[in-house]
Amino acid sequence: MSRFTDWLAERAAAREEAGLTRRLFASDTAGPMIDLAGNDYLGLSRHPRVVAGAVAAAERYGAGAGASRLVTGTLTVHERLERDLAAFTGFPTALVLSTGYHANLAAVSALADAETLIVSDAHVHASMIDACRLSRGQVAVAPHNDVAAVERFLAARTQPRAIVLVETIYSVLGDAAPVEELAAVCARHDAVLVADEAHALGVCGSGGRGLLHEAGLSGQDHVVATLTLSKSLGAQGGAVLATAAVRDHLVNTARPFIYDTGLAPAAAGAASVALRVVREEPERVERVRAVARALAKGGGVPEADGAVLAVAMPGPREAVAAVAAAAEQGVRIGCFRPPSTPDGISRLRLTAHAHLGDEELEHAVRVLEGLVG
Amino acid sequence: MSRFTDWLAERAAAREEAGLTRRLFASDTAGPMIDLAGNDYLGLSRHPRVVAGAVAAAERYGAGAGASRLVTGTLTVHERLERDLAAFTGFPTALVLSTGYHANLAAVSALADAETLIVSDAHVHASMIDACRLSRGQVAVAPHNDVAAVERFLAARTQPRAIVLVETIYSVLGDAAPVEELAAVCARHDAVLVADEAHALGVCGSGGRGLLHEAGLSGQDHVVATLTLSKSLGAQGGAVLATAAVRDHLVNTARPFIYDTGLAPAAAGAASVALRVVREEPERVERVRAVARALAKGGGVPEADGAVLAVAMPGPREAVAAVAAAAEQGVRIGCFRPPSTPDGISRLRLTAHAHLGDEELEHAVRVLEGLVG
Ligand SMILES: Cc1ncc(COP(=O)(O)O)c(C=O)c1O
Ligand SMILES: Cc1ncc(COP(=O)(O)O)c(C=O)c1O
Repeated sequence: MSRFTDWLAERAAAREEAGLTRRLFASDTAGPMIDLAGNDYLGLSRHPRVVAGAVAAAERYGAGAGASRLVTGTLTVHERLERDLAAFTGFPTALVLSTGYHANLAAVSALADAETLIVSDAHVHASMIDACRLSRGQVAVAPHNDVAAVERFLAARTQPRAIVLVETIYSVLGDAAPVEELAAVCARHDAVLVADEAHALGVCGSGGRGLLHEAGLSGQDHVVATLTLSKSLGAQGGAVLATAAVRDHLVNTARPFIYDTGLAPAAAGAASVALRVVREEPERVERVRAVARALAKGGGVPEADGAVLAVAMPGPREAVAAVAAAAEQGVRIGCFRPPSTPDGISRLRLTAHAHLGDEELEHAVRVLEGLVG
Repeated sequence: MSRFTDWLAERAAAREEAGLTRRLFASDTAGPMIDLAGNDYLGLSRHPRVVAGAVAAAERYGAGAGASRLVTGTLTVHERLERDLAAFTGFPTALVLSTGYHANLAAVSALADAETLIVSDAHVHASMIDACRLSRGQVAVAPHNDVAAVERFLAARTQPRAIVLVETIYSVLGDAAPVEELAAVCARHDAVLVADEAHALGVCGSGGRGLLHEAGLSGQDHVVATLTLSKSLGAQGGAVLATAAVRDHLVNTARPFIYDTGLAPAAAGAASVALRVVREEPERVERVRAVARALAKGGGVPEADGAVLAVAMPGPREAVAAVAAAAEQGVRIGCFRPPSTPDGISRLRLTAHAHLGDEELEHAVRVLEGLVG
């Protein structure tokens, strides 16, 4: 036994002891379930037109991009998707990356140098936290959704530049960021707002265009959006939406963009078609919100700002028991336990899906009522 | 104008002045070219069976995985690919991630904590450098392929644990790492070798099984491999190959794995079929090596260890002129100029491809002779 294998065994035993071991399972082998756990909010991953978009792109361009975007890995299918994303969200340009995680790593690490203060909301996603570590900037963490705290950090800074990191809909608690106030504070203090629309795209704002579009902020010089193609758009990949100057800067300096193979054509083709479906069938966006309202009622919690609902539980054991009870009744829900919750409170995590039928929704609501009642 | 837009404009002007501005172009619009620039070494990205694998997986599982792997984003197609990769390379287990970049971020950040010394070869890829920054370990950079220097760092360390980062075939210079000596040094000093096989898989070792397999190192407790599905396998994604204990550790602690949507089914399906094609048609692996030998002759450089050839040029201007001259003759080659070269020397970068026909190869060799002669 080496110290390395000893260490692995110790860490594994500690997880096991705390009841926190995570195991992978193939979800398609578990039989049909009503899904309130995944992020395919509009059900587009299996939409025939979206799948056909993936198939057509693979047949036309191949199974992979074959090189990084700056070598020979940019294809017409990427350019089209970038135009589509920009047009949909109201930004002048989009830059497509191979995951939403890469989008955050690229945006933050390229925009924050050693002369930049990064003010990060306490609840941002792991990819933004990792992005902060990759960057050379100094990081200040503001309490969740505390605009006054953000302003104090910006006002007191010694660095010439500053960026503020938020999610427009937070992935764990599902609440919205006050984007208008945040953008105003950024404008007042010559700072840039970098907002992750991962959970807002396709769900929030007019026609699912996101919360920055809703607030009239898309395309402003001091606003940058990141998003993922893997949730509402049902595919894989990510994007940074911004002015042409920001895009050029990323193309020239963002390592997680420059040194990574271009997004697979199938994913880019699927995402382009998914955007078209969202535009042509806005009733899907209405439906996901209606489902979210019904689930909130069933779970006994206030209406959500997007499609993510969090239901506080007395403790981690109760949360795990609720997940198991729901599964027995054919409903898949998620849960967050410490250390994955920002405040130590264990929660059920429910996501609304536009493609739930009325009967499925009624059953899901009844199951939820039983869990929390 | 804000300080932010001023800064972007200044950086852009500095790039322009230095002649270093990079621009994206859609490679499929440039007309037919002989490709000596991309990394689709075996031509599998457009292989009919590989494309059919992508199509079948998209049609069966959808355009996206819909959730992170630990929620509901693990599908049978991921499990199969993991079995296939492990069987092919000789490791007990594989863990598939959504890019090769993620594979390096995940492996290094999860294996190196604050009590770990990271000894990194000076030439490792951007994803390994970023991985070092994400981790809590202290980093020591060893001169390129200097096993004695690696051993000195390991021997002098104060941390209980250590990992050593290398590429088995280096992406820029194309040379091989002395993996046997490195593994022996790691074993002597109770350290773990983390070796990126991105450019070796499908090219080096018996049947393209990589250099760790060739050296009898796959599956050893103190050896971890990372690889990408986006080069020889013609798809997208990455993987970490290791013992079951390492895989469990990553599943439970690697943020770039846990908080990222699962790999798109089409990419996983394509990569599984690509592995099968490599096994069933080992002549592709022979052919890519023969092409590499012919290109080395044409470029007037020694034979390469893999499929990547580097041809030193007098300066950056000459390198750029050579790329343009080759393009005019229908051959696409790449070049590396400072700051992208590890030693300040500008180089042409040529990659061998198994699917070049004899006539294409002869033409390419003639063009190369003209460039360097
Ligand atoms: C808020 C947020 N940002 C970014 C990501 C990463 O996106 P991707 O899964 O496409 O890498 C996720 C989740 O996966 C997320 O929840
Ligand atoms: C050595 C090496 N490792 C990792 C990567 C990243 O792999 P991917 O493009 O699949 O993210 C690359 C290039 O892209 C590479 O050259």
